Amino acid sequence: MLNFDYNIQTVIHFGKGKVSELGPELRKHSSNILFVYGQGSIKKTGLYDQITGILNEHNISFQELSGIKPNPHISSVRTGIQLCNDYELDFVLAVGGGSVIDCAKAIAAGYYWNEDVWDLFLGKEHEIKKTLPVGSVLTISATGSEMNGNAVITNEYSKDKLGIHHDLLRPQFSILDPTFTFSVPKKQTAAGIVDTFSHVLEQYFSKTTGAFVQNRLSEAILKTCIHYGPIALTHPTDYDARANLMWSSSLALNKLLTYGKQTDWATHGIEHAVSALYDITHAVGLAILTPSWMKYVLDDSRELFEMYAKNVWGYTEKDPYVLAMKGINKTKDFFVSLGMPTKLSEVGVKKENLSEIAEKATLLGSLGSVKKLDSTDVLCILNDAY
Amino acid sequence: MLNFDYNIQTVIHFGKGKVSELGPELRKHSSNILFVYGQGSIKKTGLYDQITGILNEHNISFQELSGIKPNPHISSVRTGIQLCNDYELDFVLAVGGGSVIDCAKAIAAGYYWNEDVWDLFLGKEHEIKKTLPVGSVLTISATGSEMNGNAVITNEYSKDKLGIHHDLLRPQFSILDPTFTFSVPKKQTAAGIVDTFSHVLEQYFSKTTGAFVQNRLSEAILKTCIHYGPIALTHPTDYDARANLMWSSSLALNKLLTYGKQTDWATHGIEHAVSALYDITHAVGLAILTPSWMKYVLDDSRELFEMYAKNVWGYTEKDPYVLAMKGINKTKDFFVSLGMPTKLSEVGVKKENLSEIAEKATLLGSLGSVKKLDSTDVLCILNDAY
Repeated sequence: MLNFDYNIQTVIHFGKGKVSELGPELRKHSSNILFVYGQGSIKKTGLYDQITGILNEHNISFQELSGIKPNPHISSVRTGIQLCNDYELDFVLAVGGGSVIDCAKAIAAGYYWNEDVWDLFLGKEHEIKKTLPVGSVLTISATGSEMNGNAVITNEYSKDKLGIHHDLLRPQFSILDPTFTFSVPKKQTAAGIVDTFSHVLEQYFSKTTGAFVQNRLSEAILKTCIHYGPIALTHPTDYDARANLMWSSSLALNKLLTYGKQTDWATHGIEHAVSALYDITHAVGLAILTPSWMKYVLDDSRELFEMYAKNVWGYTEKDPYVLAMKGINKTKDFFVSLGMPTKLSEVGVKKENLSEIAEKATLLGSLGSVKKLDSTDVLCILNDAY
Repeated sequence: MLNFDYNIQTVIHFGKGKVSELGPELRKHSSNILFVYGQGSIKKTGLYDQITGILNEHNISFQELSGIKPNPHISSVRTGIQLCNDYELDFVLAVGGGSVIDCAKAIAAGYYWNEDVWDLFLGKEHEIKKTLPVGSVLTISATGSEMNGNAVITNEYSKDKLGIHHDLLRPQFSILDPTFTFSVPKKQTAAGIVDTFSHVLEQYFSKTTGAFVQNRLSEAILKTCIHYGPIALTHPTDYDARANLMWSSSLALNKLLTYGKQTDWATHGIEHAVSALYDITHAVGLAILTPSWMKYVLDDSRELFEMYAKNVWGYTEKDPYVLAMKGINKTKDFFVSLGMPTKLSEVGVKKENLSEIAEKATLLGSLGSVKKLDSTDVLCILNDAY
């Protein structure tokens, strides 16, 4: 096991009706906030009225920043910072999914940064010394942004999609009411499950020996996705399914599974390069690429895939290769059962672009740690996934 | 799944050499501290010299409170509060195991309490509004006190052993270096493993439905104890064994496994009554009583014990009763393999005292939630464990 520094300070109010904690939580920090949300679904569900009602009831004045896109744009971040300056706002409240929360965090990070906020995404995140406090009300289970210090922003001008991480960006509080996800459509629900599942896999597969308890914790989250994923798709208002998936998505990327071990993240690296060129849903890319990545790195780390097949999927085959392949094929089947495509060719990716994608994915160096992947390796994976 | 409020704010510095974080962490809070430790083992191992060296190097003045007993006495707590008052100390540093940390927390809680500190243990914990900050350097994996807000103190005058819980009592930071536990003797190592295992069982067995992810997380910790317990006993300097057991003991009782579900704690309730009359190690009492509790409540919650036998121990028996009993018997075998006795009669408990113990255990009402136990139930369990 590797050394680590554990620091998960976000307070979580979890459960039906927990939005009642919003007023008291905000009052601890501010009476003049920026209220960030997405493209209007919270108006349809009535959550917008509920939130503004709470803000008024607690005498919290606010400015709105709406229309945040699924891949939040740097222009929204800049507008948010401007609003905070103009109206002397000192807290950023995100109501939505991971994109809205990421946008709120980028605003919070940029507020005290004297230069253009995009600089932080170009390798200056370590220079963050102070941020505005952020809080969130979550409406989609997927990214885990509600409990971590990550923010991914798209620069719509340069066509780059980059992330920052800083513990100061962890929300002060997040409100997780599973009933808020009852209305999430089937496709987005499935994407959220794949997202969570993939986050865990990126941390589970690792060359670090002796991270036993972390591996068992990872399996706990994977099993929860496997158990409740299909239930949430067929019974979208099943409370326990939504609650288990919601809590799992937060635990999957709050660092609990990462502390003490090396992680991989190659599949995410490849997917980012794919979706930089093609407008496909992140989780769709992950679902397509993951089995191909698994097969490609299998020979270098077969014992990891044997562990996965046995502990996560319950296979008992004696032949190590057969056992490992059972787990990999079952992963693909699982994603298919959630409605995911299996080939890049199905989602409009052109064969002639694969080399460009492979180059883009490895622009800053090799990917992954289970097996270090250069552009030739990535191209093999892309071809397999085509 | 039940509603919950997650709040685990203790920063953990985990790994070999992490005591280097002690100086910087303390300097965030104080330059004049109370340094609490036990009965001298840290002087033998050299840790005392290391700690005082760090304190001097960082210009942190300190007063010492030493000699804290395995069941920390209220008189030590009172002395600690007096020292804080006399020397204007504003931080309590515990270096040791759960008892030392519990004592430090009680001092921290009592400092701002205007009346006698024992009052807090007599049902006034909810009146705690402010505490001194606490930090810890852990030397034994067992109680999880390094990451939670619990403190159990013995009143040596009234012969009561009572606990308080408050989130304000969670340490600001804890330093967990697995090498500090290399020298923990076999008996105490085994006791720590049973302690951790029992903490998880008390939270695992529950009538709450739909706490699926919590149950899988609990199984992760149980499997880690099962895997590394025997290794730590035979190879006390195996780093990964000590590291996994150390991190597991913290995760077992920092509330991660409790959030979202009802818990039981009947076995702990009965054990406290046993050890109030007889000076036996808490974990020894737990190891003896747990299988008897399991058998007694089995008929009311057989599906829980089937889950346990299957997921934790890997049994696949088709007959539900046989399956459940396999898990219970295996639990007993596991404790025996760690060197634990199996009968109250082996540890000096007198048969004629069992009724008194049963009455004492249920003095404040029935125990448990999987099955509510009155004094008659407790007596049956005690007789089975005799």
